[in-house]
Amino acid sequence: MSSESRPSRSVVAITAHSGDFVWRAGGALALSAARGDTVQVICLSFGERGEAQGLWKREGMDMATVKRIRREEAEAAAAALEVQVDFYDLGDYPLVVSAEDNERIVAALRAVQPDVLLTHVPNDPYNRDHNTAHETALLTRMIAQAMGHDRGTTPIGATQVLMFEPHQPEVCGFTPNLLLDITPVFDRKQKAMEVMSAQSHLIEYYTELGRRRGQQARRNGAGSAVLHAEAYQRMFPVVGSELI
Amino acid sequence: MSSESRPSRSVVAITAHSGDFVWRAGGALALSAARGDTVQVICLSFGERGEAQGLWKREGMDMATVKRIRREEAEAAAAALEVQVDFYDLGDYPLVVSAEDNERIVAALRAVQPDVLLTHVPNDPYNRDHNTAHETALLTRMIAQAMGHDRGTTPIGATQVLMFEPHQPEVCGFTPNLLLDITPVFDRKQKAMEVMSAQSHLIEYYTELGRRRGQQARRNGAGSAVLHAEAYQRMFPVVGSELI
Amino acid sequence: MSSESRPSRSVVAITAHSGDFVWRAGGALALSAARGDTVQVICLSFGERGEAQGLWKREGMDMATVKRIRREEAEAAAAALEVQVDFYDLGDYPLVVSAEDNERIVAALRAVQPDVLLTHVPNDPYNRDHNTAHETALLTRMIAQAMGHDRGTTPIGATQVLMFEPHQPEVCGFTPNLLLDITPVFDRKQKAMEVMSAQSHLIEYYTELGRRRGQQARRNGAGSAVLHAEAYQRMFPVVGSELI
Amino acid sequence: MSSESRPSRSVVAITAHSGDFVWRAGGALALSAARGDTVQVICLSFGERGEAQGLWKREGMDMATVKRIRREEAEAAAAALEVQVDFYDLGDYPLVVSAEDNERIVAALRAVQPDVLLTHVPNDPYNRDHNTAHETALLTRMIAQAMGHDRGTTPIGATQVLMFEPHQPEVCGFTPNLLLDITPVFDRKQKAMEVMSAQSHLIEYYTELGRRRGQQARRNGAGSAVLHAEAYQRMFPVVGSELI
Amino acid sequence: MSSESRPSRSVVAITAHSGDFVWRAGGALALSAARGDTVQVICLSFGERGEAQGLWKREGMDMATVKRIRREEAEAAAAALEVQVDFYDLGDYPLVVSAEDNERIVAALRAVQPDVLLTHVPNDPYNRDHNTAHETALLTRMIAQAMGHDRGTTPIGATQVLMFEPHQPEVCGFTPNLLLDITPVFDRKQKAMEVMSAQSHLIEYYTELGRRRGQQARRNGAGSAVLHAEAYQRMFPVVGSELI
Amino acid sequence: MSSESRPSRSVVAITAHSGDFVWRAGGALALSAARGDTVQVICLSFGERGEAQGLWKREGMDMATVKRIRREEAEAAAAALEVQVDFYDLGDYPLVVSAEDNERIVAALRAVQPDVLLTHVPNDPYNRDHNTAHETALLTRMIAQAMGHDRGTTPIGATQVLMFEPHQPEVCGFTPNLLLDITPVFDRKQKAMEVMSAQSHLIEYYTELGRRRGQQARRNGAGSAVLHAEAYQRMFPVVGSELI
Repeated sequence: MSSESRPSRSVVAITAHSGDFVWRAGGALALSAARGDTVQVICLSFGERGEAQGLWKREGMDMATVKRIRREEAEAAAAALEVQVDFYDLGDYPLVVSAEDNERIVAALRAVQPDVLLTHVPNDPYNRDHNTAHETALLTRMIAQAMGHDRGTTPIGATQVLMFEPHQPEVCGFTPNLLLDITPVFDRKQKAMEVMSAQSHLIEYYTELGRRRGQQARRNGAGSAVLHAEAYQRMFPVVGSELI
Repeated sequence: MSSESRPSRSVVAITAHSGDFVWRAGGALALSAARGDTVQVICLSFGERGEAQGLWKREGMDMATVKRIRREEAEAAAAALEVQVDFYDLGDYPLVVSAEDNERIVAALRAVQPDVLLTHVPNDPYNRDHNTAHETALLTRMIAQAMGHDRGTTPIGATQVLMFEPHQPEVCGFTPNLLLDITPVFDRKQKAMEVMSAQSHLIEYYTELGRRRGQQARRNGAGSAVLHAEAYQRMFPVVGSELI
Repeated sequence: MSSESRPSRSVVAITAHSGDFVWRAGGALALSAARGDTVQVICLSFGERGEAQGLWKREGMDMATVKRIRREEAEAAAAALEVQVDFYDLGDYPLVVSAEDNERIVAALRAVQPDVLLTHVPNDPYNRDHNTAHETALLTRMIAQAMGHDRGTTPIGATQVLMFEPHQPEVCGFTPNLLLDITPVFDRKQKAMEVMSAQSHLIEYYTELGRRRGQQARRNGAGSAVLHAEAYQRMFPVVGSELI
Repeated sequence: MSSESRPSRSVVAITAHSGDFVWRAGGALALSAARGDTVQVICLSFGERGEAQGLWKREGMDMATVKRIRREEAEAAAAALEVQVDFYDLGDYPLVVSAEDNERIVAALRAVQPDVLLTHVPNDPYNRDHNTAHETALLTRMIAQAMGHDRGTTPIGATQVLMFEPHQPEVCGFTPNLLLDITPVFDRKQKAMEVMSAQSHLIEYYTELGRRRGQQARRNGAGSAVLHAEAYQRMFPVVGSELI
Repeated sequence: MSSESRPSRSVVAITAHSGDFVWRAGGALALSAARGDTVQVICLSFGERGEAQGLWKREGMDMATVKRIRREEAEAAAAALEVQVDFYDLGDYPLVVSAEDNERIVAALRAVQPDVLLTHVPNDPYNRDHNTAHETALLTRMIAQAMGHDRGTTPIGATQVLMFEPHQPEVCGFTPNLLLDITPVFDRKQKAMEVMSAQSHLIEYYTELGRRRGQQARRNGAGSAVLHAEAYQRMFPVVGSELI
Repeated sequence: MSSESRPSRSVVAITAHSGDFVWRAGGALALSAARGDTVQVICLSFGERGEAQGLWKREGMDMATVKRIRREEAEAAAAALEVQVDFYDLGDYPLVVSAEDNERIVAALRAVQPDVLLTHVPNDPYNRDHNTAHETALLTRMIAQAMGHDRGTTPIGATQVLMFEPHQPEVCGFTPNLLLDITPVFDRKQKAMEVMSAQSHLIEYYTELGRRRGQQARRNGAGSAVLHAEAYQRMFPVVGSELI
């Protein structure tokens, strides 16, 4: 994990609900953070309506409390992953992103000059907020590249976009072309999952998924040291100087 | 191009006709060779019937002569790229690969233990020999992996397969996910193209294509030093430890 | 058609124009109704601008009259099918669905707790209102599932979504995975078609289409009693306990 | 699991290697068997070369012994699932199916008159034997339907074909449209897995996969009693009389 | 239908079974013939095993008789369409095409120098003979183009390939990009259908299909004179000098 | 280029930024104009923020000046192509099209009654303005067809839509099915490119692309006189009376 021969990078995740960055991309984010990269999560909503079943089952729950608890959990998880998280509180089910919200995200992107963006797949039939987050990522990436936009800040470059794994990958048309080895930071992801949920079955579910992707990584040529992996789909061609 | 921090690799290209490795993958092969990799081209036919229009237009041409000239050209091109080439002479239009031919290729693969295989796309409606070469690559890769096959030689691992660019990429369903910077070795590819053909328009065509892919590489984030590129489609997920 | 061994279900169709539920899904709706299911059609517009050529050709026609006639026809057709229909009157060409309209649909869904939703395909290049209706169905389904939405009503479950056949199925990317036998209720669909249109050629067209899908059903294993069918594409995996 | 209101069916699986029917379809086969269906596995090879790494690592192993052990294991697993298995011993890596082999399979299909066929996906880039088994299933199904073929036996009908889950589903283009509840027979599948392998990690892997598909089934509307599932892709449209 | 401003063309159809050219492409073939084109049908088999249910139901039928009747019917249909038909008698269910058969087809193609080839779709899950015919068309087209093949005959050019409509188009991945107006020759197609079958329901089925495609043609801009159409999918890009 | 036997047509291009019609469709537009067609470009924005890097690098540049220069260049290019251009000035990065803007475009379409519409691909991951322009084209085409819309103007027919080539065609899912010969008007396109840009490398890039598409056209059967081509994807089936 030494980063001596590698320049520091900037990683941004644009996600729909406050849990997404932990369950779906926690390993990638922790890995980057551990290497000294700047890692920023843009969390568009708390998932307060649609992703907080556990909280709503508690007696006397109200929206403000749900949001507060979801925020605290996500902050604790981000701390466990050693990444920063910003909450945009744009509402969920449905998530609606206005032109002004886009401007704020563009400013955030220009501020950190990301080398890579993480986000959802474009078409999740189960959850249209994921689509909205995806579109927001592509749209704000484009605006942030425009030389004529906000002449006081610096345009970003041709940032690569990675889509993380949805809950039902085949139904969402997700085809991974990167199996990322997260073994070195799996303990951090586990810690983050634990602060996100008291429900051990969820943690078990994503731990199993990581092992499954790790097994597939080994079937695709990874060494036996790869135990946990996360699956990603890169949107744009990789520019490289090596065949593998 | 120093290779000090990088172990030497083994690269094998399985191609239908004797010109394919030059026009379609000459940059990648030269790049690997220049880094000290072992590079082996398995040339299944000379393209003697279907890809030698220029020769057949000459007075008094016969099959043996066409094959000889095609072989000499390919050998000279391989020398320019600094790679090895083996001719299987299995016939073209159509290319037919028997079980025995597969055994020979499997032996060759096991002998060099490739880290990466280059070949054609699976479905080229213009040229079914390309499909045959693709299927041969996947089939022999599988056989070469089998522990119970030819117990006296060593099975290969989960070799990545890269498909190089067909002549009409969109019609063949080719979607590049790797734009390979071949700028450092473009002079070698040019030299190889020159020995393959007296026809300057063909060399011009592929030089322009390389510039076009280079321009696309820059649009996808490459630095301005990337002038020439070749497009590839990796078949299997990449196993990695970096997001980009 | 006895329903003794089968619990009653709730079926909702979300359609763009007032004719869609008759021509495209009339058999399915009548079949459910005949079995004692609750069947509700949410008709987002009357198709008053774009789907009422016949009416606009009449002398002195105006928008209010077109809407009134389209409504009366649709009501009569719904009666023939023995289903309920609600008109949202949101305009057509283009159909525009606001956040408030979505709320109304969500309330309707929660009120009837649908077991299945019928709607258009996601991408009809001929008719973007169909896309809007599709997106509305998926979006309101998602909102209606959210536990934190409108705490006074009950969230719906993981309702299956079926897409009915567009006019030019291949161009719209429609691939049927269900051929529904509507033979037992074809007389009702015919009656509904007759009240929708004085134009016998349209009725003939859809009668022929039903026979064609019926013939395909027999080719896929249906018994010879299946004479009329409608084609559907289920969006989500079926959860089942039988292989066929 | 009572089958009183349900006629007995005939199920045939056509698989490449002797382990496939256990790991990939063991639940479906056991489920059918438990309901009184006739279940027949056509095992085209023992996977002796390519799928018997564990055996080949043993000192002094030879081909005959590998085949014998693979056969015994598969027979024991079949017994645990309460299904029949026939071994065709056609070789693996590569599997080659001759015209005579097809004739034998056609005869077997006609003898049992299958209601459903299970087999591999059409295009597995990792393993071309799977493709061969798939093609064999479709080809022999077609021949067995021909009225003019072998006039002394009875043609089969329009048998549905189900593809079971490959090891890397997304890379193989597998999109499940059936999540089959195998909870009632999971103990039998577990028993079958145990006789197939001394390696607890493999059993754990497929147990986890079953739980994962079970969890997805619940997300698609299954009741909480569904704990284990297998994923399938039906090839042909279902002919039905119910929307869900 | 005057052909004064149009040079005569050569059209070849390569079909699996003796009925295919009538039901699926009879309009196109008759249209070309009526314009003075040379039209040649290469009929790879009589469909004697799999497509002759009616004949096999007759008492005392044998293979030779089935073939003879199928041949006579197809010859009469070809006469009605005013096209030529050649029978290769290669067997059906399965159709098997040898290297020698390919040579014969290549010679036939070179003899007539086709401007366009008609054939089946590449992947019909119901009928693998259709796939074989498709592959044969692409393979022999390629061989026939090779300058080094059979130096005594003339290579063909870059012949366009059109796929005609399969029985279940969506399941076969057929997406028409040409709706061919066959109104002027529909009477000939009808006559050809009548000699092919005494079964009026089949003729009715394909007459309805032609009307349906005609209706779709009008929806895509054809004038009201277009009453009957056949759907085709062109494989290669059209080279043209007009946008529509 | 004589148009004596051909009725005059109406061509409309709906494009996102002011350069698009030149680089991507200049040949097609010039070709139509040269034949006496009415050619109208609807230019939704000047590309002032995102496509004017060269201008923004100049000292003291401001938005009004960028727009003015972009407008003048586009007008000069349109003059070179001999086509009309209308500027809607709706903003870029992002382009936003309101209901009122759609009304204006609908009125424009009805005024010229287009036979063909040119626009962008539906999904360009690099540039969402292209998607917006595509959707605008399909949406306004639909509205313009509605008999009940604006009863004082005449509805348009079933206008064909052609998508022109995006910068990275494979990544955008672009599959050309028309290679348009623009050789007769290439000098006009070149002139238009020259007034659009002082940068010779851009002109060289698109000249090379035209040669490449021309070479592919010859490979698809065009005569040797075809030197320059543009690639297009027709959205709807062509209705025709010829096979090629």
